[in-house]
Amino acid sequence: MELAQRNYQTSASGLEALFAASAPDVISFAGGYPDRSLFPRQELNHAFSSSFTNGDSELLQYASTAGYQPLREKLAARMTRDGINADAKDVLLTQGAQQGIDLTARLLLNAGDGLVVEGPTYVGALAAFDAYQPTYYTVPVEDDGMDLHALQKVLMTQKIKLIYTIPDFQNPTGTVMSLKKRQALVALANRYDVVILEDGPYRDLRYTGTNLPPLRYFDTQGRVIFLGSFSKILAPSLRLGWLTASPELLKPIMALKGGADVESSNLMMQGINSYLDHNDLDAHIQKIRTCYREKKDLMVKTLRSYLPDSCQINDPEGGFFLWLNLPAGFDAEDFMNNQLLPEANVSFVPASVMTPGHGPVNGARLNFTGPTLAQIQSGAQALGQALQSALSPKRLSN
Amino acid sequence: MELAQRNYQTSASGLEALFAASAPDVISFAGGYPDRSLFPRQELNHAFSSSFTNGDSELLQYASTAGYQPLREKLAARMTRDGINADAKDVLLTQGAQQGIDLTARLLLNAGDGLVVEGPTYVGALAAFDAYQPTYYTVPVEDDGMDLHALQKVLMTQKIKLIYTIPDFQNPTGTVMSLKKRQALVALANRYDVVILEDGPYRDLRYTGTNLPPLRYFDTQGRVIFLGSFSKILAPSLRLGWLTASPELLKPIMALKGGADVESSNLMMQGINSYLDHNDLDAHIQKIRTCYREKKDLMVKTLRSYLPDSCQINDPEGGFFLWLNLPAGFDAEDFMNNQLLPEANVSFVPASVMTPGHGPVNGARLNFTGPTLAQIQSGAQALGQALQSALSPKRLSN
Repeated sequence: MELAQRNYQTSASGLEALFAASAPDVISFAGGYPDRSLFPRQELNHAFSSSFTNGDSELLQYASTAGYQPLREKLAARMTRDGINADAKDVLLTQGAQQGIDLTARLLLNAGDGLVVEGPTYVGALAAFDAYQPTYYTVPVEDDGMDLHALQKVLMTQKIKLIYTIPDFQNPTGTVMSLKKRQALVALANRYDVVILEDGPYRDLRYTGTNLPPLRYFDTQGRVIFLGSFSKILAPSLRLGWLTASPELLKPIMALKGGADVESSNLMMQGINSYLDHNDLDAHIQKIRTCYREKKDLMVKTLRSYLPDSCQINDPEGGFFLWLNLPAGFDAEDFMNNQLLPEANVSFVPASVMTPGHGPVNGARLNFTGPTLAQIQSGAQALGQALQSALSPKRLSN
Repeated sequence: MELAQRNYQTSASGLEALFAASAPDVISFAGGYPDRSLFPRQELNHAFSSSFTNGDSELLQYASTAGYQPLREKLAARMTRDGINADAKDVLLTQGAQQGIDLTARLLLNAGDGLVVEGPTYVGALAAFDAYQPTYYTVPVEDDGMDLHALQKVLMTQKIKLIYTIPDFQNPTGTVMSLKKRQALVALANRYDVVILEDGPYRDLRYTGTNLPPLRYFDTQGRVIFLGSFSKILAPSLRLGWLTASPELLKPIMALKGGADVESSNLMMQGINSYLDHNDLDAHIQKIRTCYREKKDLMVKTLRSYLPDSCQINDPEGGFFLWLNLPAGFDAEDFMNNQLLPEANVSFVPASVMTPGHGPVNGARLNFTGPTLAQIQSGAQALGQALQSALSPKRLSN
């Protein structure tokens, strides 16, 4: 039995490595997990119970591919407040933002088509893209977002169909794309007739400073597709995200959603809608922000105390991750597998699995939202000390 | 913005036609809807509430791509009882059986690869397959299932990667594949090294006679993938199905599932598991069977009273659909759009949209589970009378 060629891609192994690094006795900075103590479990229980009791007669029936209308209205209003003008008809509910990545790739990419991703980028996006066998072009991430000079060089020489970016608190580097680059990126997309996929799962999770408008705000030609998600602001197991795009792109995406899984769960959509009717999501997000800011600050402070001088971290303004920069040539994957995990019981995601093909190896993504404050304290200390040891002249000379 | 070639396929329009035919004042025999009065709404309410209250601490967190282990155990036990030996590790929870079709196609089909489907077949499967741009080969459905002589001719002359079939109460014809054909089909798949996708959403819904073993029962080489679904035996809006396959096929399918939507909803899986812990699913299915049998009998009886002699229906032993056979050359789609819907407010799915490319036009799928008994009575009568009128010498001569 011969499998399709798409199965020979490698990104899935990156995802596997990521889950393997989440064994119970390990302090995991590898996952992308929210803090489970923040899930509004009781409120969601009431919301679902209310849907079962008071919801309409179609609660358990097939519904529509686009998704539950009142929830689409609420999401359109939220996005409009955030700079993305949208009506309910412009919103498609998806099986997490992940499905939005999959459907966008399915919409646009023939095998071999040019796809620009940030290097490093979200490994799950690579797993989705792989299925469509694109030709990857990787553009480095700078402190203020994607390197647009590098991007322009690609656009000038290659036919690119799609640019995938996470402008806010990028996964994995935690960086924010500057205002100037946002405008310039959309202008480049216009000039070279490229679609931009703007993945915005962390957009509500800013801990310091002020949010910039989303890329979609600058989009005058209907070529930015925006993805949102309840996973980081409510709970991942709801598996609900949303997508907004121009009618020209949204209509065929909806048709593809029908083929992929018919529709999202009406029960899930009505339950979440009921939660939003009876609770203040913004107040809940404020609670999340306060918690994650404290965790982020502790991780930054602890790492700065224990990391050797040759290693640097950033101090992200929001999101789930900070980035650890290691000395040139230092292999973070090898360090994790052969020293950090076995000797210190700490894990992270090494840079090497977050770039298509072979990227730089001297970096790592550290998650600060999933672990407890105590785990952050001891794990960051252990990580710093393990790097001190690994980078000491004695160990290096062996 | 240039879309991928897969978007130029046509099956989505068939799905659209199907939904358009479900307007509120229409008696719809077009949908594939369960009877909403059978949904165990209160029991599901209790089950979800119990999960929120008593479920484990991971209820709302990311979980695993394979799905909730206790539910996989229960499904493995159900399948084993039904002739499919499976352990929990052999089961993947999917976003409805629809996602199982999508993932199987993604696993196996490069653009242009040979795919055999039944003619007519489930239009949603075509929508899923279209995304992978297969070369379709359509094999007619006979009263006892797929025409294996026609299949063998295809297998002898074309390289086929995958055969898609619904052996039990086929969508749309309601036919059951005979025991002899089941054995012979698996033997052909072995001989020509083809994977079989066995779609089994109606398998539990037999109203008369005795079930035959699934194709997977006869599979000694790990080349049959079986799909099950809660949509028809519990509720469609749960959007949960399952897939079982040999480890060789299941492992890469799980990796593809990760890229498609990370995982199914842990909340949904635990809620359904809790329902199964506290309720007798088989007793519930028996209730469904009794109701659907009565509906099916009424539709058969009414149609037989009113259909002109030149039209025939079958009397299926289970499932959701019966098949209306119309005189050669009679265009069911045209009849529905220009006479049945506007004049009688009744809809069905015409044969033409259920075959890749252009198939026979003189047939229609009639659903008897969604409408009420009163709707079946009046709708079947109206359909019979409309056909009498359409086929009367006077109208035909216009």
